[in-house]
Amino acid sequence: MRMYDIIRKKRDGLALTPQEINHFVAGYADGTIPDYQASALAMAIFLRGMDARETANLTMEMAVSGETVDLSSIPGIKVDKHSTGGVGDKTTLAVVPLVASLGVPVPKMSGRGLGHTGGTLDKLESIPGLSVQIDRKRFLQIARSVGCAVVGQTANLVPADKKLYALRDVTATVDSIPLIASSIMSKKIAAGADAILLDVKCGSGAFMKTRERAIELAEAMVAIGEEVGRHTVALITDMDQPLGLAVGNSLEVMEACDVLKGTAPEDIAETCIELAANMLVLAERGPLDECRRLVRGQIANGRGLAKLREMVQAQGGDPLAVDDYTRFAQAPVVHEVRAVSSGYVVAMDAEGVGVASATLGAGREKIEDAIDPSAGIVLAAKKGACVERGDLLGTLYTSDKKSLYDAETQLRHAYVLGPEPPEPTPHFLARVDAAGVEDLRTA
Amino acid sequence: MRMYDIIRKKRDGLALTPQEINHFVAGYADGTIPDYQASALAMAIFLRGMDARETANLTMEMAVSGETVDLSSIPGIKVDKHSTGGVGDKTTLAVVPLVASLGVPVPKMSGRGLGHTGGTLDKLESIPGLSVQIDRKRFLQIARSVGCAVVGQTANLVPADKKLYALRDVTATVDSIPLIASSIMSKKIAAGADAILLDVKCGSGAFMKTRERAIELAEAMVAIGEEVGRHTVALITDMDQPLGLAVGNSLEVMEACDVLKGTAPEDIAETCIELAANMLVLAERGPLDECRRLVRGQIANGRGLAKLREMVQAQGGDPLAVDDYTRFAQAPVVHEVRAVSSGYVVAMDAEGVGVASATLGAGREKIEDAIDPSAGIVLAAKKGACVERGDLLGTLYTSDKKSLYDAETQLRHAYVLGPEPPEPTPHFLARVDAAGVEDLRTA
Repeated sequence: MRMYDIIRKKRDGLALTPQEINHFVAGYADGTIPDYQASALAMAIFLRGMDARETANLTMEMAVSGETVDLSSIPGIKVDKHSTGGVGDKTTLAVVPLVASLGVPVPKMSGRGLGHTGGTLDKLESIPGLSVQIDRKRFLQIARSVGCAVVGQTANLVPADKKLYALRDVTATVDSIPLIASSIMSKKIAAGADAILLDVKCGSGAFMKTRERAIELAEAMVAIGEEVGRHTVALITDMDQPLGLAVGNSLEVMEACDVLKGTAPEDIAETCIELAANMLVLAERGPLDECRRLVRGQIANGRGLAKLREMVQAQGGDPLAVDDYTRFAQAPVVHEVRAVSSGYVVAMDAEGVGVASATLGAGREKIEDAIDPSAGIVLAAKKGACVERGDLLGTLYTSDKKSLYDAETQLRHAYVLGPEPPEPTPHFLARVDAAGVEDLRTA
Repeated sequence: MRMYDIIRKKRDGLALTPQEINHFVAGYADGTIPDYQASALAMAIFLRGMDARETANLTMEMAVSGETVDLSSIPGIKVDKHSTGGVGDKTTLAVVPLVASLGVPVPKMSGRGLGHTGGTLDKLESIPGLSVQIDRKRFLQIARSVGCAVVGQTANLVPADKKLYALRDVTATVDSIPLIASSIMSKKIAAGADAILLDVKCGSGAFMKTRERAIELAEAMVAIGEEVGRHTVALITDMDQPLGLAVGNSLEVMEACDVLKGTAPEDIAETCIELAANMLVLAERGPLDECRRLVRGQIANGRGLAKLREMVQAQGGDPLAVDDYTRFAQAPVVHEVRAVSSGYVVAMDAEGVGVASATLGAGREKIEDAIDPSAGIVLAAKKGACVERGDLLGTLYTSDKKSLYDAETQLRHAYVLGPEPPEPTPHFLARVDAAGVEDLRTA
């Protein structure tokens, strides 16, 4: 079998066999297939597509290209969660303890932030003392005793995906449904959970800009999950503006704690409840309505928050930070941004808010850059708000006073004011499972 | 300007600007753009295409990526000729002296054979003593004094095309009209002639299998030539069977000499006359009919053959070999292949004949392989012939007796016999110039 023939076949729009996909993934991972052939194939896949069977095969070959995680020592149905990434997306921090507090184990591996989106690991590390670099044995121990743990990925998880993703990133072949779907799902499958809940973000701050494209990606990922025996559900959720009011690492942890206390803004609270309820459905805890009721109960009775406290402590963090936010590092520079004109917030550029937060020190350009855990933005106005000249738009937090000018400009540009209030946008756009697509916009 | 954005633009089907094409070609030639980005772009071009303007820009950027040849010291309109390659294609050896004998200078750079097609340089070198490694100064001297010379390409001619072609060859991106057209034309333009005659081969032994595709390539090349101010004409000629009867290096030189003596088979003779006449048209020697008459005259009066003798002598070869074929190296093993059944030759696999000849030692797999100048095949039957069991199909010549079995099998497989004579196929399928396409099948 020759890589040349595999490229030619895909170039001509034909489906690749499992053997051909294995030849490519194994050869690319071990270095016998050079980058220039892999990038030609990636472009051919980008322009010619892959059918569901090919995508599932690509996913599984990447999943087994390195270490895989064996979660069988943890009893019960283990449910993982993945978000395609947005601005202000701190849902994992609230959803994981909520679900675990109901007895469903959530042993989770997460990633770091890059560009305008934050990463769960960076957010968690803003909790004083907390570590995400935890070895496999201790990770499983915590997951068994506490019921949840959120740690960094093993270095050798899905090496083929890592290598291919880095190549796609520099050859304009990232934005392809089969390649995105297989990349995400290969990591989830290698991480070992029995079932997977996907949060596919949709809108100006997300990778998927339209509902149609987000549904297409969700369908591809659900098809992979079902093809390889991992029940998978995807929610398409709104990312046309940041989720909640807090953007930045410690700021987002505090807002996640607010979700568990019942004091968070409605959009982030409802999104967390819906995600947690769907994870419970995947764990076979009953119909969705019943699961929603269970989740709301854990917020009301404080058991979700208690579970977060437990997990933080198990991972070496200060459990009191969950209740007393002064225990987080405090940004030395605090700066208010106020409106210079009046009107309704008719649109927000979520990506622009993410960029402003990164400018303040909350994000990184390159994976080796350091971040400032206390930096970020707390928004005071979101879509639909009626803003008067002089009203607060948001508060900037940073350790780098020089960043204020750029960040303020970026934040101002992210607001679009108009004379009439905008149509309200639903938080949930669709739900996709093996049975099909459910439209949630009118729900 | 970033290569990433150039790839993305072509991926999305947009036309690249001259600046973007310059950035790519210059960066790829100097090594600042890596192979994996170039191959992704090549695949995007393969699947999305390039318009005439883009193709012309790509051609010119490659043409000026290295040395270019200045032919201005040779008076008159210099006309070059290029064949896209076939089996038994020895036309250059007859056409160049025919045209030069009429006072039109033909200073020509040529290539070596690879795979199942032969190369003009290898054929010429089968003439005892003849050299094709001639420095620039001497090349121009010979072209001025004799009127023609056929030598090897300068090492530094079109380095960008060399590098890109090698990459396309291993990434399944060769068979793309804009990429083929720009590759061929960049070499011709860098080689400095004022006008270019293209012989686009079409059929089982050619790269272009159909007339439509051959015309598409011809149109792309003619458009490039006209865009950059080099008058260009393309003939689409038949390569559904080998051209003439001789396949192999010295065997083809002898047949080319037969063309100049008026004793060659009709298909190769007529093809050479038509090519030479079209070169004269490009050199503004009058209308095509008049030019054909001129060419036939040079065969009848022996001046074409005399010019070849002169050129051979100027390049250090034995001029008597042109008249006395015993002066060529003689193959020690001669083997006749005879028909084992009867019928009409309804089809011939030209590529199969080329492979058989290469098996005998006339071709090479890799560019550094040596070849046997005396090896090859003289066919005894071509399409339309009525063959009786026991009749001669062809004679094999080789220095390697062990190759006979494979070569005989390959030659036998190249013949398709049937009960009825086939429709005769025209030698000339079309003529393409700036004015459009002329159908020559009924001419």
